[in-house]
Amino acid sequence: MENNFPEHKNDLILKALRGEEVERPPVWMMRQAGRYLPEYMKLREKYTFFERVETPDLATEITMQPIRRFKPDAAIIFSDILVVLQALGLEVTLNPGEGPRLPNPVDSPEKALSLSVPDVEDRLHYVMEALTMTRRELNGEATLIGFAGAPWTLFCYMIEGRGSKDFARAKAFFWQHPEAARHAIDVITETTIRYLNAQIKAGAQVVQVFDSWSGLLSPEDFNEIAFPSLKKISDEVTGAPMILYPKGSWYALEALSYRTKAAGLGVDWCITPEYAREATRNNITLQGNFDPSRLLAHPDDITRLVHRMIDRFGAQRYIANLGHGILPFIPVDHAGAFFDAVKSWRKSK
Amino acid sequence: MENNFPEHKNDLILKALRGEEVERPPVWMMRQAGRYLPEYMKLREKYTFFERVETPDLATEITMQPIRRFKPDAAIIFSDILVVLQALGLEVTLNPGEGPRLPNPVDSPEKALSLSVPDVEDRLHYVMEALTMTRRELNGEATLIGFAGAPWTLFCYMIEGRGSKDFARAKAFFWQHPEAARHAIDVITETTIRYLNAQIKAGAQVVQVFDSWSGLLSPEDFNEIAFPSLKKISDEVTGAPMILYPKGSWYALEALSYRTKAAGLGVDWCITPEYAREATRNNITLQGNFDPSRLLAHPDDITRLVHRMIDRFGAQRYIANLGHGILPFIPVDHAGAFFDAVKSWRKSK
Repeated sequence: MENNFPEHKNDLILKALRGEEVERPPVWMMRQAGRYLPEYMKLREKYTFFERVETPDLATEITMQPIRRFKPDAAIIFSDILVVLQALGLEVTLNPGEGPRLPNPVDSPEKALSLSVPDVEDRLHYVMEALTMTRRELNGEATLIGFAGAPWTLFCYMIEGRGSKDFARAKAFFWQHPEAARHAIDVITETTIRYLNAQIKAGAQVVQVFDSWSGLLSPEDFNEIAFPSLKKISDEVTGAPMILYPKGSWYALEALSYRTKAAGLGVDWCITPEYAREATRNNITLQGNFDPSRLLAHPDDITRLVHRMIDRFGAQRYIANLGHGILPFIPVDHAGAFFDAVKSWRKSK
Repeated sequence: MENNFPEHKNDLILKALRGEEVERPPVWMMRQAGRYLPEYMKLREKYTFFERVETPDLATEITMQPIRRFKPDAAIIFSDILVVLQALGLEVTLNPGEGPRLPNPVDSPEKALSLSVPDVEDRLHYVMEALTMTRRELNGEATLIGFAGAPWTLFCYMIEGRGSKDFARAKAFFWQHPEAARHAIDVITETTIRYLNAQIKAGAQVVQVFDSWSGLLSPEDFNEIAFPSLKKISDEVTGAPMILYPKGSWYALEALSYRTKAAGLGVDWCITPEYAREATRNNITLQGNFDPSRLLAHPDDITRLVHRMIDRFGAQRYIANLGHGILPFIPVDHAGAFFDAVKSWRKSK
């Protein structure tokens, strides 16, 4: 079945990811659809988190909210990385005021070894439907980004059953039951490959893989645990450029830029643009890396600092973004100042 | 008044910090006195946290517990970085099951501007008393380490009033009220200088400054906010070598090694020994950096990995330690394996 999507008018981010020349960098914001927006908070009062994620109409509406308001160059589908754990048959709960929980985490090698790759296209059909609806709704005016959590990050939640400062038990599971842990990571990896390919078939034009907890791994453990699955995903997901975002893993930029098929790398705010360019030898598109808490500064300062950030990364092979997701208590006009600053940037010389 | 301390028999860590040749690296463990020890848990049942910290007999006993059990080369005094906030007149509470809280955080520029440097030697007399008692009790068989939190890290708690994943409000306070924020940091810095000098006078033979949250700062913000106070402290604390531990701030190792008077730098586990040596051009003593969650591995693996860590850092100008504090749920014999591994290390060639 062919999807007859509207003509794509704004391909700025696709150009940046291909390394083609652009007038200004494309801009979007991690978690741009979310709690800092009053229009999102209204829907949040009416529908639970899972209703919002699992109802394509709602997910589409939420994805579109920041597009209408700020006209960024990309829309990231409203969803959650933990849906892949649900597709694997694990229960995920979310009570107001606390983070997500797995009431029955994978706490034994037997449980880990019993995991198998599901029919993810069927189990997570609502994500694909939301992508197709959103792609139509966007009408070619912004590029649609799909996403998934990286296998290491999902493994962390799967084992601990909740957020953690150090995910020490997830790591310990790896030291203590390497075979079972490797099996679990492999299952997540294969599921993620199928999931992202399905997202692309459904309309995603770019996909991003969030390794939110990779920065908790030593460089050696990153190479052993996180890197192989990121590489495999970048090899086997086809049809759209991929952005890898290994939060905190400054030491991995070189290997990720050279030894994977990623078109872009997300960079957090603790890495200077100069370091990121040097580590990747100007050979990949970089995305980031405004400190999310800097959006609490005065809008004039935001404008100045965004312009400086672009000057330092350079406008080519660059996607302006935050270094991590927008915080829930950021004033809307401060977020607006960020988008405006990127659009008003002009090469000074 | 002269303190007639026992003859110092074990000066391994002092030698390492002076860059003198040693047979094997010295070893101690961040948070070695604490919740993973059953003898500590017994005292914890009987006395509140503040009773343990503020009673020199108890603080001494707790400091000595891991010394008796493991015979490390250094003892770090049992205390808490937040006592400096108490000395500044701020209330700190600790309810079981949650982290420390400041019921009345510094949430306005007026409050920040009203802070002034207290008579810290008087306010925190119990820490100095515990140091003197412990120094005697150690009988020269381990070196006594005093410590303080870094000004940026204390500022984080002072403003937010509790732990945080991002300390975004503390940063925002800096963007929004730079003068008041700078005043607060300056007051903490001056208080810390007096505090550490008093600790040395009372018997501390090494002092360590914990910048637990420096890794949340971008390199530029680190240079602006955290670095100047660390440098000032290293300049103005005299009489004992200083170790700076800027957790997460891999980008700051070079400047901290060259532009401060620190004798040692603590390194977390996300930095390779090779990177740390290169960044500091083999010009300072490094301390660290075993991943604390690796203590959940099999003791044989711990031994092997500790030996490899020493081989990579090199035995000279090096202090074996974890990359962060020991976790509460580490089995005691695994901690023992760590200490034993350092002591059993022999140069292979």
